[in-house]
Amino acid sequence: MADSPNCDLESLSPLQLFERVTEQGEKVRALKAGKAPKDEIDAAVRMLLSLKLSYKTTTGQDYQAGLPPRDLMSINNGTTKEEDEDFVDPWTVQTSNAKGVDYDKLIVRFGSSKIDTDLINRIERATGQKPHRFLRRGIFFSHRDMDQILDAYENKKSFYLYTGRGPSSQAMHVGHLIPFIFTKWLQEVFDVPLVIQLTDDEKYLWKDLTAEKAYEYARENAKDIIACGFDINKTFIFSDLDYLGTSTGFYKNIVKVQKHVTFNQVKGIFGFTDSDCIGKISFPAIQAAPSFSSSFPQIFNGKENIQCLIPCAIDQDPYFRMTRDVAPRIGQPKPALMHSVFFPALQGAQTKMSASDPNSSIFLTDTPKQIKTKINKHAFSGGRDTIEEHRKYGGNCDVDVSFMYLTFFLEDDDRLEQLKQAYTSGELLTGELKKVLIETLQPLIAAHQERRKQVTDEMVKQFMTPRKLAFEF
Amino acid sequence: MADSPNCDLESLSPLQLFERVTEQGEKVRALKAGKAPKDEIDAAVRMLLSLKLSYKTTTGQDYQAGLPPRDLMSINNGTTKEEDEDFVDPWTVQTSNAKGVDYDKLIVRFGSSKIDTDLINRIERATGQKPHRFLRRGIFFSHRDMDQILDAYENKKSFYLYTGRGPSSQAMHVGHLIPFIFTKWLQEVFDVPLVIQLTDDEKYLWKDLTAEKAYEYARENAKDIIACGFDINKTFIFSDLDYLGTSTGFYKNIVKVQKHVTFNQVKGIFGFTDSDCIGKISFPAIQAAPSFSSSFPQIFNGKENIQCLIPCAIDQDPYFRMTRDVAPRIGQPKPALMHSVFFPALQGAQTKMSASDPNSSIFLTDTPKQIKTKINKHAFSGGRDTIEEHRKYGGNCDVDVSFMYLTFFLEDDDRLEQLKQAYTSGELLTGELKKVLIETLQPLIAAHQERRKQVTDEMVKQFMTPRKLAFEF
Repeated sequence: MADSPNCDLESLSPLQLFERVTEQGEKVRALKAGKAPKDEIDAAVRMLLSLKLSYKTTTGQDYQAGLPPRDLMSINNGTTKEEDEDFVDPWTVQTSNAKGVDYDKLIVRFGSSKIDTDLINRIERATGQKPHRFLRRGIFFSHRDMDQILDAYENKKSFYLYTGRGPSSQAMHVGHLIPFIFTKWLQEVFDVPLVIQLTDDEKYLWKDLTAEKAYEYARENAKDIIACGFDINKTFIFSDLDYLGTSTGFYKNIVKVQKHVTFNQVKGIFGFTDSDCIGKISFPAIQAAPSFSSSFPQIFNGKENIQCLIPCAIDQDPYFRMTRDVAPRIGQPKPALMHSVFFPALQGAQTKMSASDPNSSIFLTDTPKQIKTKINKHAFSGGRDTIEEHRKYGGNCDVDVSFMYLTFFLEDDDRLEQLKQAYTSGELLTGELKKVLIETLQPLIAAHQERRKQVTDEMVKQFMTPRKLAFEF
Repeated sequence: MADSPNCDLESLSPLQLFERVTEQGEKVRALKAGKAPKDEIDAAVRMLLSLKLSYKTTTGQDYQAGLPPRDLMSINNGTTKEEDEDFVDPWTVQTSNAKGVDYDKLIVRFGSSKIDTDLINRIERATGQKPHRFLRRGIFFSHRDMDQILDAYENKKSFYLYTGRGPSSQAMHVGHLIPFIFTKWLQEVFDVPLVIQLTDDEKYLWKDLTAEKAYEYARENAKDIIACGFDINKTFIFSDLDYLGTSTGFYKNIVKVQKHVTFNQVKGIFGFTDSDCIGKISFPAIQAAPSFSSSFPQIFNGKENIQCLIPCAIDQDPYFRMTRDVAPRIGQPKPALMHSVFFPALQGAQTKMSASDPNSSIFLTDTPKQIKTKINKHAFSGGRDTIEEHRKYGGNCDVDVSFMYLTFFLEDDDRLEQLKQAYTSGELLTGELKKVLIETLQPLIAAHQERRKQVTDEMVKQFMTPRKLAFEF
């Protein structure tokens, strides 16, 4: 304290520091715009630099205008002050590494467990089924409490699956299918009920969208989800805007979660600020509540203690860390989780595929020709600059987006291994690898489009009607 | 900025200043506890005093440990820097004045309008009914947009009434009846639908109460409300915990309000802090939503533009100031309001009657004997210390709680005026005035109890079932 120009900056929170830097930046701009005396401007600039330094010392991150500090990444981890930290939260995935996010580090940070060979073998024994390629290839790589799910399952105690989607637009891309493909497999091998949440309220709150439009997207997205082949007798799909007003159990669980989570907590977990609307601030409870079977009295006959398993991309984990923290305090079992990696953007694994960037995405509505063009034009290659160099040194599968996509979609393990060898040795050229991907994706997407055409409005209505499923509880 | 020890304190928000004072106070305590050198302690104390001064200059209030600043009182008012400010928010009413809160000042602060003789006469003309004693005697003293309601009503355009209660316990006291007595009169003279919200979710969030208990209180309180004599064909009573999960329109309006109100706003209006649970922070939207007719599609046939009139005690106004601010931004009409004064505690008008303090309250379950004892023992008297003095100087009706209660419950204007004259002149003694009150309240409460006995669980169920009412829309 006392007479330092920075006053007691060290006692300020990252957010307060952020606000101080922002204010000072505005002051400098104002002085410059007003053609203030040079020494006055210089003093203000020195103060700005000093504030930015304090910000970096405190947060371990460079100040970025408009991007308030988030302490998400520091959860369960004291070593966040690295220059090239990956950034992962439910809205943003960003890394400087072309191989993508460092998932082993993420497991340590998030405090989850690795899906290792032992666990995969155990799933195989329990279900009597060959593990899904997403398990064999580390695409679902992290979990929480899967042992507990399997213990109970081996003792004939059932569970249910919960996954979801935020319907931000009509267009879904291939990356959006990952959790649904895996969830469908889990449902089939374990034979358990499934609930799928469409967070149209979230999209209404976050985007420049009417509630009516968000609900319309939810119903459109439901068609793509249904086209994945879910069993109507075992699956309930719901829109928040719709279901909240028709369920006797859902709101009660929401308000129970809301009583046990403070603004300080959601600020820490999700990076909310005082300028965020109260809808965003309380939304995490709405994504939490389907983790409790009493949110679906029609399915579980009002039973409160059915365990839940949530397959999702790892960026959704903050919601469920919060949920698991609250669960025992409201007398509910903690949901178990299985986390997937992100589906890389065409341009490279530094970001995930995003529907809002059409060039980064292959949409489920794309024609064979569009698929071909996008892959040839945009898919980041790990190949060499010239054919000669490629033949000599080989390509790099770790950063090659076409190869990454093949690990997601090519079922045949041997074939994938052959491709990897051939590409790495330089025998297989980039264009040839892309061709394999194109020929893998085109029929998959065409088949999806064919199934989607069969999905009628009546089927959507049935899937979205609260009802008993083909299970007794 | 630069080298002042207070740094740029002036640029800090009241809350930031509050936190700085708190921190500095802790520092001083730590220095003293650690027997630090005298000059160091003195310097820290000087800084503390300087911070407190900045706090007072900025907020107009003395710093009080543990009580963060609220800007509620300063809304629409630049003159809050008085020492003996009344404090009014939805949870606390406090004044140092035995006459009670200065309601004329409150009108200025809240930016509402006085219910004056012109307005009362206009209501009389529009309805063809003698104005209720609560209007004649200034008990409903303030309003927003009543002229608009009357303009529309005179042009045969209908509206609906909305009032509510927070069911914090089984026990309701006579003060709780005030909005219901007046609302019943409004419903009768205007012949309009009425919705009554029981905020069991609010009580669950704020109190040490299970959701189930709060819902039980809601149903018990509904019996007392029904016993006021509401018409079952024109009135819908609902518990939030119940209705939110059975209404297709309610949640949609809640989330629309939640999108348009920030944490900064609810912090300013309700004094929430970062340590409050996200349920409290988002609750104001739940009290706001019934102001929009689309929250009740079953009553209004899905119509969105039916104007709402809310009779309530003035401490609920912050919710509806917020609602009126949001309404145009979500394409809804602003609700109109009529505000009542607070019902004073038995001990005096410095606070309102509170069910959590049994000595301050006359409950609707009290026996004639309990009523008599409480009034004789606790009702603050404006009489003189001795009979001789009282005869000579007379009593003071402005601070006499028994007289205040008579203004609420004695229908006969002439009789009330006679009592006032006689008490003020000293002709009527305190004991005699209390006797009049006792004889007024005993039969009123006995009759209420008699009507409450007639209220069956089946009737409660009917009142609380979402349904069409006896109006066409």
